[in-house]
Amino acid sequence: MSKAITSRAQDYSQWYNDLVLKAELADYSAVRGCMVIKPYGFALWENMRDALDKMFKDTGHVNAYFPLFVPKSLFEAEEKNAEGFAKECAIVTHYRLKADPNQKGKLMVDPEAKLEEELVIRPTSEAIIWNTYKNWIQSYRDLPILVNQWANVVRWEMRTRLFLRTAEFLWQEGHTAHATRAEAIVETERMLDVYADFVENWMAVPVIKGIKTPNERFAGAEDTYCIEALMQDGKALQAGTSHFLGQNFAKAFDVKFSDRENKLDYVWATSWGVSTRLIGALVMAHSDDDGLILPPRIAPIQVVIVPIYKGEEQKAAIDNKVNAIVEELKHAGIRVKYDDSDQARPGWKFAEYEMKGVPLRMAIGARDLEQGVAELARRDTKEKKSVPLDKITAMIPLELAAIQQQLFDRAQAFRNAHITPVDSWEEFVNVLDNKTGFVSAHWDGTPETEEAIKEKTKATIRCIPLSNPAEMGDCILTGKPSAQRVLFARAY
Amino acid sequence: MSKAITSRAQDYSQWYNDLVLKAELADYSAVRGCMVIKPYGFALWENMRDALDKMFKDTGHVNAYFPLFVPKSLFEAEEKNAEGFAKECAIVTHYRLKADPNQKGKLMVDPEAKLEEELVIRPTSEAIIWNTYKNWIQSYRDLPILVNQWANVVRWEMRTRLFLRTAEFLWQEGHTAHATRAEAIVETERMLDVYADFVENWMAVPVIKGIKTPNERFAGAEDTYCIEALMQDGKALQAGTSHFLGQNFAKAFDVKFSDRENKLDYVWATSWGVSTRLIGALVMAHSDDDGLILPPRIAPIQVVIVPIYKGEEQKAAIDNKVNAIVEELKHAGIRVKYDDSDQARPGWKFAEYEMKGVPLRMAIGARDLEQGVAELARRDTKEKKSVPLDKITAMIPLELAAIQQQLFDRAQAFRNAHITPVDSWEEFVNVLDNKTGFVSAHWDGTPETEEAIKEKTKATIRCIPLSNPAEMGDCILTGKPSAQRVLFARAY
Repeated sequence: MSKAITSRAQDYSQWYNDLVLKAELADYSAVRGCMVIKPYGFALWENMRDALDKMFKDTGHVNAYFPLFVPKSLFEAEEKNAEGFAKECAIVTHYRLKADPNQKGKLMVDPEAKLEEELVIRPTSEAIIWNTYKNWIQSYRDLPILVNQWANVVRWEMRTRLFLRTAEFLWQEGHTAHATRAEAIVETERMLDVYADFVENWMAVPVIKGIKTPNERFAGAEDTYCIEALMQDGKALQAGTSHFLGQNFAKAFDVKFSDRENKLDYVWATSWGVSTRLIGALVMAHSDDDGLILPPRIAPIQVVIVPIYKGEEQKAAIDNKVNAIVEELKHAGIRVKYDDSDQARPGWKFAEYEMKGVPLRMAIGARDLEQGVAELARRDTKEKKSVPLDKITAMIPLELAAIQQQLFDRAQAFRNAHITPVDSWEEFVNVLDNKTGFVSAHWDGTPETEEAIKEKTKATIRCIPLSNPAEMGDCILTGKPSAQRVLFARAY
Repeated sequence: MSKAITSRAQDYSQWYNDLVLKAELADYSAVRGCMVIKPYGFALWENMRDALDKMFKDTGHVNAYFPLFVPKSLFEAEEKNAEGFAKECAIVTHYRLKADPNQKGKLMVDPEAKLEEELVIRPTSEAIIWNTYKNWIQSYRDLPILVNQWANVVRWEMRTRLFLRTAEFLWQEGHTAHATRAEAIVETERMLDVYADFVENWMAVPVIKGIKTPNERFAGAEDTYCIEALMQDGKALQAGTSHFLGQNFAKAFDVKFSDRENKLDYVWATSWGVSTRLIGALVMAHSDDDGLILPPRIAPIQVVIVPIYKGEEQKAAIDNKVNAIVEELKHAGIRVKYDDSDQARPGWKFAEYEMKGVPLRMAIGARDLEQGVAELARRDTKEKKSVPLDKITAMIPLELAAIQQQLFDRAQAFRNAHITPVDSWEEFVNVLDNKTGFVSAHWDGTPETEEAIKEKTKATIRCIPLSNPAEMGDCILTGKPSAQRVLFARAY
């Protein structure tokens, strides 16, 4: 097969790149660090987006759209946020090109079209949104504001990777405004739950909910909640974050409201986001050396049907039967594709749909038709079985559900086997280097120790799990007292 | 009512601005020429987008996503396209901010982070997409490519207006690649039909399909097809365009394919787009001095129910009945809102939902309940009638369909009454100044005459209608021979 990819054992990182390209999820572009999301990858993103969007709406949120540009003076208003993103901002300085007098047919930036104030391309939209909320909020009656936007953002990363870290990416960012601290915290936690629900039940990727240490917090947040997932190479990946922003942005943009007692106070804020990075997590959590493995609930194609025939007569008989099955499956809401193209042989198609991670393949030949059966093959386990045609449309939804569950169970078993409690530095380093995965260890709670551990091992504190039991112990590095274990890992 | 807006008769332009702001469709932003699309406006856009997206997919198209940035060297590759957009491009020149040493807490563009090659923010994506297609197309087997993207684009307009002309706007842009000229032309025309279908049958705005003159063509196109609508002030508005791009972009980006005979040829292209500008067209085609009037098929709220009561007991009885009706309507796929908020009186709510253009209002009081009726009020005609409660859920879909039809009929009657054939210059100017609307007149076919007419009257040739009969005549300005009438108008 021309589409063979590097194996995971050989080079995990190369396997990932090969897979993203060969499964036609994305492509490199002519712009440094920016990718093209190809139709198959975008169809996957649409399914993820639509499921999330429904969850946001079901929890009372509405969508809106704010400008791509943030004037520099607004961008710098919330100091920590500005400091956190200043180093990776794309900046618009001019608004016109003109013919280059020295090079025929070429254009140059028109020096006379320099902006009075530079515009930052949003790396995140707190600044432009809170500057807008100032006009929307006067009284407690205007609260809460529960707004989300689906948008592109730009962060000028020096080292980029398809989906995982790109200069431009697609995401959603929720920005909510509340009358009380308590209500804002409830919202922060609610959206973390929505993300965990989505990633576990749609993407079939188990996550650990936790809180970031101050070092790892979103710039401008009082608390950052996160969900952390584990990839097959034992590295962690932050799959989504939900921030309690306190009154930081309200103070920076002077957004006050009068409460029921007519007293003025600053508004409380949250923000939360997930991005196309989730596609990278999806690929690395489930796929194998033959290609992508997609969970049925978000797979662009859930079932592919491949006919095996010689001559027009056999083809017509198969078509006749398959068309009826396709109709029934579509009616049941199944995303099915009948690939009867005569430009490729069945074996090539089998490999192609394996590469693309289609959960179920049904193959049917002339003899199958005579016997009233078809062959059903699962992408996840590679199991094949012969199924009576009169049972197949009833069976397919059950098979899809079984695959969804099996992917989650497998990922969860792997993840659970890769949370290792350790109590000595030697063990800590040994697990990180050999077993990999999350390491549950005591930490003295200081940023200095966290930083020193990162320096020595490249491992970061992924989170303090929400479900953490209190447990006294000694810091893995300094031996100082610690009140709980935290989760360390090397991470994407 | 605090929300009164300027009347159309008083100042049409101010009426439009007032309406967009007071109906909460959009808001001005801190960024010059950029707007905030508010949740109500965005919900409208979502309904429009989803309907269009389904039509694109039903005609075989898939979505993808290409970078926001276009390197200057790619941007300038197709010369006419580059020339057409060079004057209104936002340009990224730097990728980092740093602390300003002279102003504490302020940031400045880091001069050391200057890009080697400037990046143009896409005003349209032909360049970046055709540079990508080069890698996707080798053989006729790779064709056609039928891709669409939903994206934000930036055109640095000097005079902006909410929705109608903004520096950043949301749109979709289809970019297709074909093996033959004929197939590309069929695609160009197919998408024009899709746009006309959408604007007429969803937005209830009648359009004229036509072809642009060379002067008014998209920069880089061989032919631009368009749909033109008429606003209530007698000005035209271009509602969508579909371009036959010939081989221009294939040549600029060297995109060739080998055909069935293994002969190399350049690929044929189309592109087509509609934008959030359509919301401006929608507002100006239907609304009145009390606010927005929305066609039911795209209205975010199709039916609002307002209770009229004194005391908790009456309220409970009404709730009980209304909740059942709401359930039934939702089950039938109707977007219904029960506004039982106690923060506003019924009269205020009536005015609010009239401002927001909700097609149907159902009001129900304690006495209505006793008599088993409710009052149904149409936003378009302001007609009210008493309807038996046991018939109301069956009647509402019929009323919505009637409103949809009535809006179209009314707009069409107005439009048809405003296409005026004229045969003298005096009459031409008189109709433009007094009757307004489209003027159907002979033109000698030269860009010079077209330009001269524009200079003298501010009227442009909106299109050469596709349905135009051949008719010999004399040019309205020069008296030179003409083979057909074309449609002139002042336009947005």
